[in-house]
Amino acid sequence: MTRPMVVRDESLPAAVTIYEVGPRDGLQNESAVVPVDVKAEFVGRLVGAGLPIVEATSFVHPRWVPQLADAAELVARLPMDGPTPLPVLVPNERGLDRALEAGARHVAIFASATETFASKNLNSSLDEQMAMFEPVVVRAREAGLEVRAYVSMCFGDPWEGAVAIDQVVSVGRRLLDLGASQLSIGDTIGVGTAAHVQALVRAFGDAGTGTESLAMHFHDTYGQALANAHAALQAGITTFDASAGGLGGCPYAESATGNLATEDLVWMLDGLGIEHGVDLASLVETSVWMAGVLGKEPASAVVRALG
Amino acid sequence: MTRPMVVRDESLPAAVTIYEVGPRDGLQNESAVVPVDVKAEFVGRLVGAGLPIVEATSFVHPRWVPQLADAAELVARLPMDGPTPLPVLVPNERGLDRALEAGARHVAIFASATETFASKNLNSSLDEQMAMFEPVVVRAREAGLEVRAYVSMCFGDPWEGAVAIDQVVSVGRRLLDLGASQLSIGDTIGVGTAAHVQALVRAFGDAGTGTESLAMHFHDTYGQALANAHAALQAGITTFDASAGGLGGCPYAESATGNLATEDLVWMLDGLGIEHGVDLASLVETSVWMAGVLGKEPASAVVRALG
Repeated sequence: MTRPMVVRDESLPAAVTIYEVGPRDGLQNESAVVPVDVKAEFVGRLVGAGLPIVEATSFVHPRWVPQLADAAELVARLPMDGPTPLPVLVPNERGLDRALEAGARHVAIFASATETFASKNLNSSLDEQMAMFEPVVVRAREAGLEVRAYVSMCFGDPWEGAVAIDQVVSVGRRLLDLGASQLSIGDTIGVGTAAHVQALVRAFGDAGTGTESLAMHFHDTYGQALANAHAALQAGITTFDASAGGLGGCPYAESATGNLATEDLVWMLDGLGIEHGVDLASLVETSVWMAGVLGKEPASAVVRALG
Repeated sequence: MTRPMVVRDESLPAAVTIYEVGPRDGLQNESAVVPVDVKAEFVGRLVGAGLPIVEATSFVHPRWVPQLADAAELVARLPMDGPTPLPVLVPNERGLDRALEAGARHVAIFASATETFASKNLNSSLDEQMAMFEPVVVRAREAGLEVRAYVSMCFGDPWEGAVAIDQVVSVGRRLLDLGASQLSIGDTIGVGTAAHVQALVRAFGDAGTGTESLAMHFHDTYGQALANAHAALQAGITTFDASAGGLGGCPYAESATGNLATEDLVWMLDGLGIEHGVDLASLVETSVWMAGVLGKEPASAVVRALG
């Protein structure tokens, strides 16, 4: 299998954590419902390929995301107490109740950095969003769970356009103050570019939030995801969200939401000599299999080249 | 039209030159022959969109690339003495004769960085390659033309695997010594990663070849093209080859050769506040039109998102 030549840049982190979002963020954008057995196999294969953390599903109301209506059934089939954390998304307290009942050990919440998206997605203001999340985070922590907080629309918003860096830092810090242990800084519509990424990470640092509390979540809508990941590495980021095979993307639609493909990230990390623990061959095999299940071409360049 | 927020990185160049290769490097990989009038319109639209230099065609023997058999006819329809340089590729002296006769004012030669590719592509050794190019460069310069030299397989080679940086610098410097004014450093099979790019640029600098003599030519086979362009900007590179709409790529084949898409590069440069002179809307419109002519989806994320 073709692999890159390793040229190390000593100024970059020696190791990173890839937070795999394919089963949740990837599949939730797929219209054809995938059987729960296939989802369980998908998660199992990703764990087997060495992904150190795999977000398994979301306890969102089935009315909103029919694809994930089987969350409890899926969790029942997964090794939630195993060595690899398998977080689940919980949109609210009701979702947390269902996740706890099902046996979840790690949860994530999904917040907005902008008023308009909070209003469109949660039908609430930013203050109401925080009020809604507070009991979720408090109760999850009381149950011994760590809570990750997604912050969406951190680089641009379809309604508001550019999003001020200060605004993102403010929302992120409120979520950390509530008790979240990690922020996933999302470029939901993919408009961010490299210096913007670095400026945002610096602004968090200036406000007292170090890179150990930040993950970056890039979308490839305008082709920038990997360049932005390189810029984030330079800014000291060591956790990256990615989706096996670029799952969740819709490469030929204006609403393209393509997640950064895990394989393309792995290729770059391999070339840079940065440790990540993922076996690229197993991962590519998994993505080729899942693309077959879904009946579509994988959105990852590496999978297309090697698969 | 959605555009990125501008966040300038003062350590990067203030302006770059995009060397558009779509009509030559893009179209030569398309099997369906495009009529000469359409090619002339394509070049004209690219010039109209503000591309500062557009490689128009290649005077390769028609037997090898039937798509470009109309090189002389195309050149006759183009404003070769206009303000925008329209270089043509010349594989050898015979090609140079045809190019000069047709009225070309700028030419490019296509060399290999490796013995194996020189043997496969030119049926020669590296020494024989240099001997073949010497009269081409000398005669072109005597005719008042500047000569660009493509150096292919600079990051990896399908037969040799990894390619040593010293080897690339050695071949590049021989081409400059022959009289070439600019090297286009090609990652022909797309295996390079960011620190490798920066190490190669530094090695040229250490050998006395500054960034003003270098252009970078990336392929997106493994999704690395734009991350590598960002890394090259950081290393001081100010000339980038790119192909409108990612033309020349074959996104769903193992032999994927996708050129860096001009639009994706423009998006990044716009976000970084780096001047380039290209009107993105006109360029996207041109790529959408050309994709229609070819009956295929554009390989550029920006074109898919905005087109």
